[in-house]
Amino acid sequence: MKDNTDRQDAICRIFRTRRRKALKLAGCQASCNTILISNPFDVEYLTGFNGGDSYLLIGQDVVTLVTDSRYTEQAGSQCGPDVQIFTRKSPMSKAVALALKGSGTRRLGIQSLHATVALAESLQELLGKKAVIPLKPFIYQLRMIKDDAELVLMRKAYRIAVESFCELVGRGASYWLGRTELQIAAELDYLMVSAGATKPAFDTIVAAGEAASMPHHATSARKIRPGQGILLDFGARYRGYCSDLTRVVFVGKIPPRISRFYETVYAAQQAAIDAIRPGVKACRVDAVARGIIADAGYGENFLHSLGHGLGLEVHEMPTLSALSSAVLRKGMVVTVEPAIYLPRVGGVRIEDDVEITASGARLLGAAGRKNMDDMILQ
Amino acid sequence: MKDNTDRQDAICRIFRTRRRKALKLAGCQASCNTILISNPFDVEYLTGFNGGDSYLLIGQDVVTLVTDSRYTEQAGSQCGPDVQIFTRKSPMSKAVALALKGSGTRRLGIQSLHATVALAESLQELLGKKAVIPLKPFIYQLRMIKDDAELVLMRKAYRIAVESFCELVGRGASYWLGRTELQIAAELDYLMVSAGATKPAFDTIVAAGEAASMPHHATSARKIRPGQGILLDFGARYRGYCSDLTRVVFVGKIPPRISRFYETVYAAQQAAIDAIRPGVKACRVDAVARGIIADAGYGENFLHSLGHGLGLEVHEMPTLSALSSAVLRKGMVVTVEPAIYLPRVGGVRIEDDVEITASGARLLGAAGRKNMDDMILQ
Repeated sequence: MKDNTDRQDAICRIFRTRRRKALKLAGCQASCNTILISNPFDVEYLTGFNGGDSYLLIGQDVVTLVTDSRYTEQAGSQCGPDVQIFTRKSPMSKAVALALKGSGTRRLGIQSLHATVALAESLQELLGKKAVIPLKPFIYQLRMIKDDAELVLMRKAYRIAVESFCELVGRGASYWLGRTELQIAAELDYLMVSAGATKPAFDTIVAAGEAASMPHHATSARKIRPGQGILLDFGARYRGYCSDLTRVVFVGKIPPRISRFYETVYAAQQAAIDAIRPGVKACRVDAVARGIIADAGYGENFLHSLGHGLGLEVHEMPTLSALSSAVLRKGMVVTVEPAIYLPRVGGVRIEDDVEITASGARLLGAAGRKNMDDMILQ
Repeated sequence: MKDNTDRQDAICRIFRTRRRKALKLAGCQASCNTILISNPFDVEYLTGFNGGDSYLLIGQDVVTLVTDSRYTEQAGSQCGPDVQIFTRKSPMSKAVALALKGSGTRRLGIQSLHATVALAESLQELLGKKAVIPLKPFIYQLRMIKDDAELVLMRKAYRIAVESFCELVGRGASYWLGRTELQIAAELDYLMVSAGATKPAFDTIVAAGEAASMPHHATSARKIRPGQGILLDFGARYRGYCSDLTRVVFVGKIPPRISRFYETVYAAQQAAIDAIRPGVKACRVDAVARGIIADAGYGENFLHSLGHGLGLEVHEMPTLSALSSAVLRKGMVVTVEPAIYLPRVGGVRIEDDVEITASGARLLGAAGRKNMDDMILQ
């Protein structure tokens, strides 16, 4: 087990070196000597360091993590020997200027979508107004395509979520009845952590009965009652990477209308997954699912886009939506989550995570309980 | 219970109106017609809306929340009638420009510490380069002083954390032994949620044995063993507001050295709390605790500052540290968390939350188990 983790670490490190090389090229294209990475997810993607509060400088010859004394040790062991660790004792912008000294940096690229106005102003004061170059987003294009090291971790994150959910369902109706949405969510979190997750990938949503009609229901102290459908939206974070699933379970019989929802949504999800392969437009996949739901008469009740990219963050590129201009490529990982919501009645959303292969798409792992008949709590 | 919550809501709303008025004055001082609030915690502070992904425009006559269709209903009910809801269908910066139409805004203040370079550039394109004014931080000065509505919620967040911890300790050594740090953390989270928390205020830290010597230990799959000291850093979020506590419990006997740590840290915390009152410098309070720890011979082993402000965020102003220039004022809420860490041995940190009163300081509630003898798992 330990050996396996060590091997995984070594492989991850090789891939991270490749990612930094790709980024150095991007820096050259923008005529920047150095790029300042301030987004913590990008820092983790490029170095493995997950402590936060630290910036990465990617120069043509040297890569430097600017951190503070709380993290010096952790940064050294997570980043490996190819990344210099600069332990700052001054505010971040001043420390960045110090770390750049002697590097010959005349143009420093910053992440315009993440760097704050205050950071940019402060760097301009220290380095000169013309030395700070806001760059358009670029790392997301790298992060959109998952390499093999990432896929291994994402499959594990998916498996943890599926198995934890199945265990919770296996406890049966007697366990669920009378517990609150928040308690069910907390128990699912507990199971995921027990199964190896670092933590839940996001705040687990549990929506009972009517509440399932709101796509962004805030999990509450409402109790589970007989006859309800209960929507669970959950995922595990494993070594940085997220899974993101939605299932609907039932306490007792399934109301006929909801059962129709379920069958329609399930069919829409299958058809969408079947439509996914490299070269297909993301908007086309959205249209496939949306068409099936519209044909069943619920076009107005599918309120959001079909899915989104997944990785170190729960929401990444590409988006599967009617407005998306993305074209799917091998190595992308996306959620597929069609839904039908009916105010004051309830809702059904079924969500899984798929990786795009050379010829199509496959789930990140066995989907566990998902057929409608398996969703009834015994 | 419902009535009580309704009354609390009504009181909160009155206070929020006051906060927005104070902010309008700040806008006048900066010669801005309108201030754009992009920090989600500030948006929640000023409106009660906690859905995220929404910006607030505070004009001289009108207050407008710019949100999207997922949140229109929630925003209306949380913000109340004094806040206009603008449901956007375009990217955020364009929507802000649309919402400002006809308002006569010639100067729009933005939060330089939160607004990104991309947002600023995009607003400048839409409104004109000179119309966008980066403002230095200002809301934190309001948020630093908690009003009565906030203190009620913070006391509850503190009580939930204390009671959940006591319940977990009450289960005794047989429960703790063999469980992992992550499982103990997840169970504490579950108890807090069952006791009324919306969620944990931050990722609960559990550090067993040697691991307690690292102030930022990542809770792991390491199992609790006999003879260990276990450090828990945890807090509840209740209606937006955080508590933040640290306790150390022991499985069996307390090693003599650790017992010396405990007594020293406990005494340092008491002395620091006794030193807190309006008009005292934050650095002075830090010095009181640090002096006691240094006198005991552990000056080098207290690695961080004594404490920090607490509220909607876990870390707010003021900071209790040697470098802080803050002067304490009535209504501030701060953590007091002295510690001693010894590499390869372990650590003790004791943390509580105090509100500053007219004449001194008091804990946000009963501190629960805290004396060393009460920390031994039976």
